[in-house]
Amino acid sequence: MKPITIKRPTLIIHEVRAKANIQWMVSKAKRLGLHFRPHFKTHQSATVGQWFRDAGVERIAVSSVSMAAYFQAHGWQDITIAFPYNPLEWEEIDQLSENGRLTVTIESAWALADLKLKIKHPIRFVIKVDVGYGRTGIKSSDAALIRNLADSATEKCQFAGLLAHAGHTYEAVGKEAIEKIHRASIQSLNQLSATFLNKPFISYGDTPACSVSEYFEDVSELRCGNFIYYDLTQAKIGSCREDQIAVVLACPIVAQHFDRREVVIYGGAIHLSKDFIEEGGKYYGKIVAFKGLEWQIMEGVFLKKISQEHGIIQLPEEYDPLVFQIGAILGVLPVHACLAVDSMTAQQTLGGVKIEKMTKI
Amino acid sequence: MKPITIKRPTLIIHEVRAKANIQWMVSKAKRLGLHFRPHFKTHQSATVGQWFRDAGVERIAVSSVSMAAYFQAHGWQDITIAFPYNPLEWEEIDQLSENGRLTVTIESAWALADLKLKIKHPIRFVIKVDVGYGRTGIKSSDAALIRNLADSATEKCQFAGLLAHAGHTYEAVGKEAIEKIHRASIQSLNQLSATFLNKPFISYGDTPACSVSEYFEDVSELRCGNFIYYDLTQAKIGSCREDQIAVVLACPIVAQHFDRREVVIYGGAIHLSKDFIEEGGKYYGKIVAFKGLEWQIMEGVFLKKISQEHGIIQLPEEYDPLVFQIGAILGVLPVHACLAVDSMTAQQTLGGVKIEKMTKI
Repeated sequence: MKPITIKRPTLIIHEVRAKANIQWMVSKAKRLGLHFRPHFKTHQSATVGQWFRDAGVERIAVSSVSMAAYFQAHGWQDITIAFPYNPLEWEEIDQLSENGRLTVTIESAWALADLKLKIKHPIRFVIKVDVGYGRTGIKSSDAALIRNLADSATEKCQFAGLLAHAGHTYEAVGKEAIEKIHRASIQSLNQLSATFLNKPFISYGDTPACSVSEYFEDVSELRCGNFIYYDLTQAKIGSCREDQIAVVLACPIVAQHFDRREVVIYGGAIHLSKDFIEEGGKYYGKIVAFKGLEWQIMEGVFLKKISQEHGIIQLPEEYDPLVFQIGAILGVLPVHACLAVDSMTAQQTLGGVKIEKMTKI
Repeated sequence: MKPITIKRPTLIIHEVRAKANIQWMVSKAKRLGLHFRPHFKTHQSATVGQWFRDAGVERIAVSSVSMAAYFQAHGWQDITIAFPYNPLEWEEIDQLSENGRLTVTIESAWALADLKLKIKHPIRFVIKVDVGYGRTGIKSSDAALIRNLADSATEKCQFAGLLAHAGHTYEAVGKEAIEKIHRASIQSLNQLSATFLNKPFISYGDTPACSVSEYFEDVSELRCGNFIYYDLTQAKIGSCREDQIAVVLACPIVAQHFDRREVVIYGGAIHLSKDFIEEGGKYYGKIVAFKGLEWQIMEGVFLKKISQEHGIIQLPEEYDPLVFQIGAILGVLPVHACLAVDSMTAQQTLGGVKIEKMTKI
């Protein structure tokens, strides 16, 4: 059992848990007879991508053109950019669709017309449907507009189905609450789908619903991403247990203030983001101790404040000061894994193997 | 007047304002008879570093060993790492002090002993004093401990003074409130300083106080950083006017929802961070329009919500829909410039000149 050896904030991936999370979702999709197109924005990593490939995954979703380019360069041939078509990047998009099967996300007649006008190589598009989250997409009740867009497909610009994200499940707490929002979203898609002559392909799936629900009527593929690592937000919602979380930020202790039961770590907002959980006071992470190839949550120890590089850890009333020495390494379970992963270039497994990650643009 | 040409979220620096901000602070330090050691964590850029050099600056502060290495490689010879000494990075620190004049920050006897034990090349240390912010450092009232540390200096490990950061000025609103916190901090340093046989060198200066105060009794050098770009937080506090802010995130519009007076931009938490201002509702940025080599705040237009890559902009009751077309480029004045800059690799001036930035570790 080699102890963790890092010098500065480093993202540590629990390879065994991450692979178990992948396998669990692959099996669930198979059992439900659904395609599986995991969202790779959570890890942004060729190394982790290979773990998915080893589990039989061939289709992926990404959140930017740059990310599509990174994964295409790493051999992924079927990529959906699950973010509204950005007309300013049409050349890069055209290039990607020359080299692989690319699907872009459309949510207006203007965007589709622009795409059709500019693109030289065959491409596919999905229509982004708003199922109640209210962030973006065409409202599912706007069936005529959606069908109209689908009917505007051409041989070069093919309609590949509907794409929806029920991001409002993140506001739920508990499996029942997730299920309720999820069912309402699915039903709004069912109603829309029923107005088509031929039922369209439907790409769907936020991590909370994919984790807890069995109800995916009319859905064709699952498109969740966060489940590979999970995080404290997902644990709080009820999507996972804390012992399924597969990512922590390892940080050295650099100062002690035992008079106020605090230690300072090298690790802050530029590593974790400023996402917090409000639960008997705000916290930006829970603290774990590393034990060989495992970590263990330290009860009552929280990351209470963060600034750019400083993290302030609050200790409980009873603690062993020897555990919190300067130079010791603690782990922070992140509130939001996707943002912590996006922030960090330095990533490795618990066993010390480097995790490749795409360069931030 | 070349219009802004970007394809994806890009940080735009207003070179004229940034250079004016530099010149203003250089002049102020000179007028007050103080050394000036700007904090380079705000820009992390060799290009912007050169602007400081052109204004006569020779000493700098940074917030990490990696940042010290980046700037030493770009010719900076006098660097203070204004972050508690991380014993795990002693080899990198020793290497840097072989090649230049390096000062590290110490706040415990343990840390100083560790430094003295390990380091092979002459190095300087400052003692971090807590003047009321409560994040880290030895309380200024703990004069005996502080003097004791100073007295433990050796020829190889020289005492270079006290270092303090009154970060609690960020909680003030208005010049008077800043001045009040600032004076209390300075007075606590004065009391500490008076207990020394010879008055120690004092490195000091948050951006709010350096921007508004004239009172720097016993202070030897100013060490502010954010003032180069400022941001909406500084404008709200009263440190600057909005027309002194020298950084915006340029983002393409990718979707319209005029029915609820919203447009969606490609630009979110991974570009701006999740810092927000609460002022008649939460917002994550104010929106500007680009006009040649200037930008102009669009009254009543706010970045109201952000997720990973999406930003939701709220439009006022009266607006010109032609201005908010898909593919158009808007700018977001950031709530916290340091975090936005840290997040972004793609940076350029309004005139289109690339700004080099250190790679995220």
